[in-house]
Amino acid sequence: MNKRKIFNDPVYGFVTIPYDIIYDLIEHPFFQRMRRIKQLGLTDYVYPGALHTRFSHALGALHLMTQAIDVLRSKGADITEDEAEAVTIAILLHDIGHGPHSHALEKYLVTGATHEHLSRVMMDRLNEEFNGRLELAIRIFRNEYHKTFLNQLVASQLDVDRLDYLNRDNFFTGVNEGVIGYDRIIKMMDVQEGRLVIEAKGIYSIEKFIIARRLMYWQVYLHKTVLGVEQLLSKIISRAKALAEQGVALEGTPALKYFLAHRFNADDFKPYSKMLDQFAKLDDTDVMAAIKSWTHSSDKVLAILASKIVDRHLLHVTLHSEPFSQNKLEAYKEQAVNYYNISYQDADALVFTGSTSNSAYSTTGSKINILYKDGRVQDIADASDQLNISVLAKPVVKYFLCVPKVLCRQYEEVK
Amino acid sequence: MNKRKIFNDPVYGFVTIPYDIIYDLIEHPFFQRMRRIKQLGLTDYVYPGALHTRFSHALGALHLMTQAIDVLRSKGADITEDEAEAVTIAILLHDIGHGPHSHALEKYLVTGATHEHLSRVMMDRLNEEFNGRLELAIRIFRNEYHKTFLNQLVASQLDVDRLDYLNRDNFFTGVNEGVIGYDRIIKMMDVQEGRLVIEAKGIYSIEKFIIARRLMYWQVYLHKTVLGVEQLLSKIISRAKALAEQGVALEGTPALKYFLAHRFNADDFKPYSKMLDQFAKLDDTDVMAAIKSWTHSSDKVLAILASKIVDRHLLHVTLHSEPFSQNKLEAYKEQAVNYYNISYQDADALVFTGSTSNSAYSTTGSKINILYKDGRVQDIADASDQLNISVLAKPVVKYFLCVPKVLCRQYEEVK
Amino acid sequence: MNKRKIFNDPVYGFVTIPYDIIYDLIEHPFFQRMRRIKQLGLTDYVYPGALHTRFSHALGALHLMTQAIDVLRSKGADITEDEAEAVTIAILLHDIGHGPHSHALEKYLVTGATHEHLSRVMMDRLNEEFNGRLELAIRIFRNEYHKTFLNQLVASQLDVDRLDYLNRDNFFTGVNEGVIGYDRIIKMMDVQEGRLVIEAKGIYSIEKFIIARRLMYWQVYLHKTVLGVEQLLSKIISRAKALAEQGVALEGTPALKYFLAHRFNADDFKPYSKMLDQFAKLDDTDVMAAIKSWTHSSDKVLAILASKIVDRHLLHVTLHSEPFSQNKLEAYKEQAVNYYNISYQDADALVFTGSTSNSAYSTTGSKINILYKDGRVQDIADASDQLNISVLAKPVVKYFLCVPKVLCRQYEEVK
Amino acid sequence: MNKRKIFNDPVYGFVTIPYDIIYDLIEHPFFQRMRRIKQLGLTDYVYPGALHTRFSHALGALHLMTQAIDVLRSKGADITEDEAEAVTIAILLHDIGHGPHSHALEKYLVTGATHEHLSRVMMDRLNEEFNGRLELAIRIFRNEYHKTFLNQLVASQLDVDRLDYLNRDNFFTGVNEGVIGYDRIIKMMDVQEGRLVIEAKGIYSIEKFIIARRLMYWQVYLHKTVLGVEQLLSKIISRAKALAEQGVALEGTPALKYFLAHRFNADDFKPYSKMLDQFAKLDDTDVMAAIKSWTHSSDKVLAILASKIVDRHLLHVTLHSEPFSQNKLEAYKEQAVNYYNISYQDADALVFTGSTSNSAYSTTGSKINILYKDGRVQDIADASDQLNISVLAKPVVKYFLCVPKVLCRQYEEVK
Repeated sequence: MNKRKIFNDPVYGFVTIPYDIIYDLIEHPFFQRMRRIKQLGLTDYVYPGALHTRFSHALGALHLMTQAIDVLRSKGADITEDEAEAVTIAILLHDIGHGPHSHALEKYLVTGATHEHLSRVMMDRLNEEFNGRLELAIRIFRNEYHKTFLNQLVASQLDVDRLDYLNRDNFFTGVNEGVIGYDRIIKMMDVQEGRLVIEAKGIYSIEKFIIARRLMYWQVYLHKTVLGVEQLLSKIISRAKALAEQGVALEGTPALKYFLAHRFNADDFKPYSKMLDQFAKLDDTDVMAAIKSWTHSSDKVLAILASKIVDRHLLHVTLHSEPFSQNKLEAYKEQAVNYYNISYQDADALVFTGSTSNSAYSTTGSKINILYKDGRVQDIADASDQLNISVLAKPVVKYFLCVPKVLCRQYEEVK
Repeated sequence: MNKRKIFNDPVYGFVTIPYDIIYDLIEHPFFQRMRRIKQLGLTDYVYPGALHTRFSHALGALHLMTQAIDVLRSKGADITEDEAEAVTIAILLHDIGHGPHSHALEKYLVTGATHEHLSRVMMDRLNEEFNGRLELAIRIFRNEYHKTFLNQLVASQLDVDRLDYLNRDNFFTGVNEGVIGYDRIIKMMDVQEGRLVIEAKGIYSIEKFIIARRLMYWQVYLHKTVLGVEQLLSKIISRAKALAEQGVALEGTPALKYFLAHRFNADDFKPYSKMLDQFAKLDDTDVMAAIKSWTHSSDKVLAILASKIVDRHLLHVTLHSEPFSQNKLEAYKEQAVNYYNISYQDADALVFTGSTSNSAYSTTGSKINILYKDGRVQDIADASDQLNISVLAKPVVKYFLCVPKVLCRQYEEVK
Repeated sequence: MNKRKIFNDPVYGFVTIPYDIIYDLIEHPFFQRMRRIKQLGLTDYVYPGALHTRFSHALGALHLMTQAIDVLRSKGADITEDEAEAVTIAILLHDIGHGPHSHALEKYLVTGATHEHLSRVMMDRLNEEFNGRLELAIRIFRNEYHKTFLNQLVASQLDVDRLDYLNRDNFFTGVNEGVIGYDRIIKMMDVQEGRLVIEAKGIYSIEKFIIARRLMYWQVYLHKTVLGVEQLLSKIISRAKALAEQGVALEGTPALKYFLAHRFNADDFKPYSKMLDQFAKLDDTDVMAAIKSWTHSSDKVLAILASKIVDRHLLHVTLHSEPFSQNKLEAYKEQAVNYYNISYQDADALVFTGSTSNSAYSTTGSKINILYKDGRVQDIADASDQLNISVLAKPVVKYFLCVPKVLCRQYEEVK
Repeated sequence: MNKRKIFNDPVYGFVTIPYDIIYDLIEHPFFQRMRRIKQLGLTDYVYPGALHTRFSHALGALHLMTQAIDVLRSKGADITEDEAEAVTIAILLHDIGHGPHSHALEKYLVTGATHEHLSRVMMDRLNEEFNGRLELAIRIFRNEYHKTFLNQLVASQLDVDRLDYLNRDNFFTGVNEGVIGYDRIIKMMDVQEGRLVIEAKGIYSIEKFIIARRLMYWQVYLHKTVLGVEQLLSKIISRAKALAEQGVALEGTPALKYFLAHRFNADDFKPYSKMLDQFAKLDDTDVMAAIKSWTHSSDKVLAILASKIVDRHLLHVTLHSEPFSQNKLEAYKEQAVNYYNISYQDADALVFTGSTSNSAYSTTGSKINILYKDGRVQDIADASDQLNISVLAKPVVKYFLCVPKVLCRQYEEVK
């Protein structure tokens, strides 16, 4: 059977499967499940086209990895066939541990288990199922392999993961300003002393990549309406979890109910465990089907929250660079108590503040290294005469205040 | 409150809401529900990018309608503000009656009620909620208004519905050959004696439009793997319905269980009725969440079918221009009986044949009319020296045979 | 020195030079001259973006050839390194014999020598300069090599030449309806019994390719204003040639004056000859610089014609499916005689008729062959149930009448 | 006659002529001449697609101006029909005074007359020919009209001129990283106290615009090979001018010879003058046709320089952030003297240094102003927490050294 199949991808045209094992991994239920997990959660509430899945992102990153390997080899980098296969597997599976709406999920349902941890556990499971053939891929993924650049292709500030997701996210959101010169960046990659570097003539492409990434953060990932929708989802999951623990019966799929009913910690997720099996069944449909049925919950607050998501009656979100005053918050909560006829404590689910932050470039950990013709290597932070790295590296913190629209006069923008 | 919002759309860049009432209709739960219904059902099993929703298609068609009105007015067509608003509403709501996976749904769950019928009922309901402001839109939609070209913009062989869906479907599938010159076609539109016509110099664009549509049919809409996946879904719904009618308890959301438990006919759907309210809650997540839970159904056949969808272990599909022999079918069914240890009758759900057909152009009903400089108007079928209209108009029938892959040696292509 | 350079190409992104000899050929003055010859002559008078050159078309075709070779090899076609290099050289040089505005040039200046003939002669010259290293490329180009499919990649109804020029022409004209699925067509290529075939599942792509090509013909290549501008250019060259032969001194570059002053036949162009050397100096700038200076020519008719080109005061063109009546023509000529105060004979340069024709598919010569899974091969003319091949193969003849705008009331469209 | 024609533009699709007078201006020989002047001079020597003309740039800027007017009016800006027409005329003609290869031309041929000056003179001439109908356009262009924002749309750090040329240049060079969100930027435009401002939520788009512009500068406009080719052209023009002044006869078109033979200063260009008439005949073809004939010049240095351009045997260019040492320069010149057998003084034309500089943002003159929701307006330099404006505003100076390749071992990259 010919496993070198071709996928149509709207972003790159065609994506070819480079190894038989890649085909087999794609066929695995763990991977097929990613077809049902959107890459950007509920961002489509703001950008209606942003429905692309973790499945297509993984294929896209695979495509870029194939290109990167070709470029590096053409410049003399030593990459064996086994290594090429392994680094390709590593990128294919790099997000395998993501659940639906990971942020809310990790906080309230699979408490303590990050998606990175879950990725590692699921890879271990797959490795057993594939009789140890993922060994090298896992070592590269965990940065336990001596050729550091292979890990950097998978997980660094300029890995093919980022190249694909920025590319893909701007394609599907329609924010075409976020366009990055991914093909040029890949063509500029090289290996110097075992590390991934970018040729100096690619320096402007890297500058633009960092600024485009920053733009995508504020315009998409941390867009205030997106933020508000995700907060709402978190409140729903948190409320449902609390109710479930109090013994309230809730509608839901078997897998979702399993996580509502039990408490876990990271160690409970073992390669062969009921928890993992149940987790591997969870996807966006479980969450949304449950929320839809909860619009009729006997718990008034849960019903209100659920309806807001289903009918897209979102909270009004205000962003500030300073924390909001306690007075303001309390005033709104009082209004909520009266308007919805709920307790002051329950009003927390509808009126609340929080903060989010982002830095465009990290000066700790894996840097973006620029290679000059004379062999010198320099961090982009020092190489660029333009990027104000001390500013870029400083996290920008934004505080948000969420309030039901009926309680405030201004309305956020629909986009 | 400013309701002239702007949506980011990856296909057209920006889509602007032209009237306040359009904003209000978009905010309505009936319309928001379309965010959760994919335009192409399970086509993403073959084209992973094809996740766009009926919501974004409706916005896209709205965008093209705005352009078409501008073009027609600039050529002197008489379109009042009320008519412009009404035809815009009509296109916005033209698909409002679609449920999830309409084909299977209409056949087994909302038996007798087509999505066209449901659209009409839902528009009537909205018209009441909006105090009769949709009156004119509904008349145009039903082709009961004297300015025929307005209806033709909404529903004809060259309406903005088709222009958008072809455009959008090829964008998201990545089948860029399907690209149509929608902007040129719109620029060539005119009105002649109350009917929509295309200026003669647009004739090659129309030819290409018809051929591109044909290509999309065979490459996407009737792609054999897509066909197979939809057949599988139908078998699942049909099986679940039969079980429900026998009193077997099935997992599912309240709305889905409502339709599994009752029998309806088209007349039961009235603007204000429980049936309509329940229908308005159904979307893709109900169906997929149920199918996922049915993988553990006590009904063996339902469990097998559901697992095939969830893990994408699809049936093998063969297409022929002639019907398949009964012998061949029976031989496969015998194999299924043995392999799965099921009854001969149950094997019908796993081994079956059927047919599908498509004609690229219809010579009955609303034609595509070409306007010459001398005022003459001619059907494209006659105007084109190239399109072999007698061939194009003839339905192409293809017969399919679906069989579990384990029972046959050849495997269909993953795309 | 590293010769594996990369070109930025707006159509494909990056084009990589695959062999050192390709770099050397690109560096040769014969090839650099193509930087100064536009692919579509004066088509930019109608489509202002259509300024792309034969140089960039040759690079684009080179790019597609590289892809085609990869695809064919991956399907097991036997292509040695020498053959791969040779077929790449052949496509790079396939248009090397084109002069500026070839149509007019071949008719009046290099009489008798077609651009195909000149390409052959120039390749022979290059072959000598490169010490016989183009031998195999030339055999392939002339279809004298036993592996027919290699020639078919260079010159057939589905060669990479056509794939690139259709692609490139629609990119730069902005006629995006002409878009062809070049990447899918290439992916469907295969070799069967030494001939180039297309896998059956690519049949719709081929249909669309043929219809898109037809659209480009009528919308661009034979657009009536483009036709008119080219006729005007022909009249100018013809007039200048006649004057030069009468001994009238005309402004012009040395190379252009050389061709105005002498008469040649095809045999005069030998690999090493003054004629060839002079021809290799001619490009668009010679022609346009001369025409600009001829606006002040003492020959009134030449001055009128030249001004029309320079200031874009084009002739009015009418297209008919029937020949124009002699009466009509004569009436216009009388008008021209009076208006311009020129002789009846000279009026021929301003008022004239002619015809042009095009067939979308040729049933003689190299066919487009479709390969079925069972190994059967069929001409697309028979394989497609849609393309009306007897119609497509029949040349469409259109007659044109060109008249100065001042002499007629209607004006053609500026585009 | 209908003058509201439509142009096909590969960048924007369609460009519609908004006023009759715009059509008439486009038809004028002054404007048609821009069809023969490339926007980026000889940049196509590095980016083969960069053949777009000042003609298509002017149409593109016209298109964006139409959009900007619509956006500003929709936000309540007071723009009368006369003003809208005038600002559209102003942008259409903003570059009308450009000659071929303006940089070299202004320095050696039309000494003292900048293209800005010539634009003003040519507009005055057109104003007379159009009986004063360009009066208001000229006042806006010269910033003598009280509505400052109209001038800012034509000439400021965020005018539609820049939006179009960045957009167009990256489209035709294929440097797609330079992509800017021109449509979003235009949608964010507003007028506050008579000045053009950008709504605060567009701040990231502006950041990206500035960084993209910087990238285009170093990657395209000041690319070292482009720089080298332009220096070569300057040397040729300068040499030809010197020879002409010494009475040496040179081949060339009448218009070019006119400028080689005379000395002018800016004041000589009057609306009605022979100088202007001759200037209005000059375009790229005059320069290239002459250079081609000069390859056989009796002046050895001119012949060498001309051949280098024609056959693309470019000088090798080295860029440094520090000036080159006089020793190094002299050593190369000695080599040139020996290699070419020319005088030490003549070697200046083949071996030379110089400098170029660019700043991404100017803090003097017209700023980019950001408008906050509370009505506050702030310079982007202060509004952005990221753009290091003191760095961006500081001109980056790069020194170049040009040397014939035969004299040095390293070769620049072909791109």
